[in-house]
Amino acid sequence: MTAEPRSRADRRRDTEHRLTNDIDVWVASASADGKPYLVPLSFDWDGAAVLVATPTNSPTGKNLARSGVARLALGATRDVTMIEADVEVIEIDELPPEQADRFEARAGFDPRASGSSYRWFRITPRRIQAWREVDELPERELMREGRWLV
Amino acid sequence: MTAEPRSRADRRRDTEHRLTNDIDVWVASASADGKPYLVPLSFDWDGAAVLVATPTNSPTGKNLARSGVARLALGATRDVTMIEADVEVIEIDELPPEQADRFEARAGFDPRASGSSYRWFRITPRRIQAWREVDELPERELMREGRWLV
Repeated sequence: MTAEPRSRADRRRDTEHRLTNDIDVWVASASADGKPYLVPLSFDWDGAAVLVATPTNSPTGKNLARSGVARLALGATRDVTMIEADVEVIEIDELPPEQADRFEARAGFDPRASGSSYRWFRITPRRIQAWREVDELPERELMREGRWLV
Repeated sequence: MTAEPRSRADRRRDTEHRLTNDIDVWVASASADGKPYLVPLSFDWDGAAVLVATPTNSPTGKNLARSGVARLALGATRDVTMIEADVEVIEIDELPPEQADRFEARAGFDPRASGSSYRWFRITPRRIQAWREVDELPERELMREGRWLV
């Protein structure tokens, strides 16, 4: 923890460090009848989108495919990056192999090994906020409508 | 990380330790039109339910009041407790003062100071699962239909 609230530029740097180096992300999704789901998933980041893989028929798989939106969290409850995002479904054999290889190297598992029971989900941030404690609630918005503010 | 998968009894002990000692919990909720929301909130635990407070008109406040269900996560992505829960809404001045005082002592803020713009949400676990890595996916269920299995 720093004594002073971080600047937006610092928060973007910290957020991009997490997107580039963390292994897991919290993925919140919702069913058509308005029930929430939440699970940690391994991910990769290509500079523009978060890539995850999960079973087509899992709650997360069904919710993301239906709604096309997700809410993600990186980090800890007192040092968080929150991401609102749009979701694109990609069938397991339709992702370019170099992207799937990169995911496997980072996540430590290869969803292609599970065949068509898994799908890829390409999750593109639309809005990003980052804060640690109450003193960082101002200036927490880092991306709006898909564009970095700093 | 232990070398061996934990027993269910150990996982219940670890889970109750978190419920008793952690300050924040991830709260996932969903809107009527099936959009997910996720935010960290401070909480108290009375042995049977998680107590949080959030503004009535915040996304979480509106979602919890509407749906009556939440999904919570405690811990980290590789050492997680996931909780499916039912939600009871309690108006800010209707909680017994000793419970509100206890919440204030643990969470470090007093939602009563914000008057009627806040509400309490009493979140009672129905299902609890806990796991660290893939080797702990078996035996991850600790509570079902509101009853501890161990």
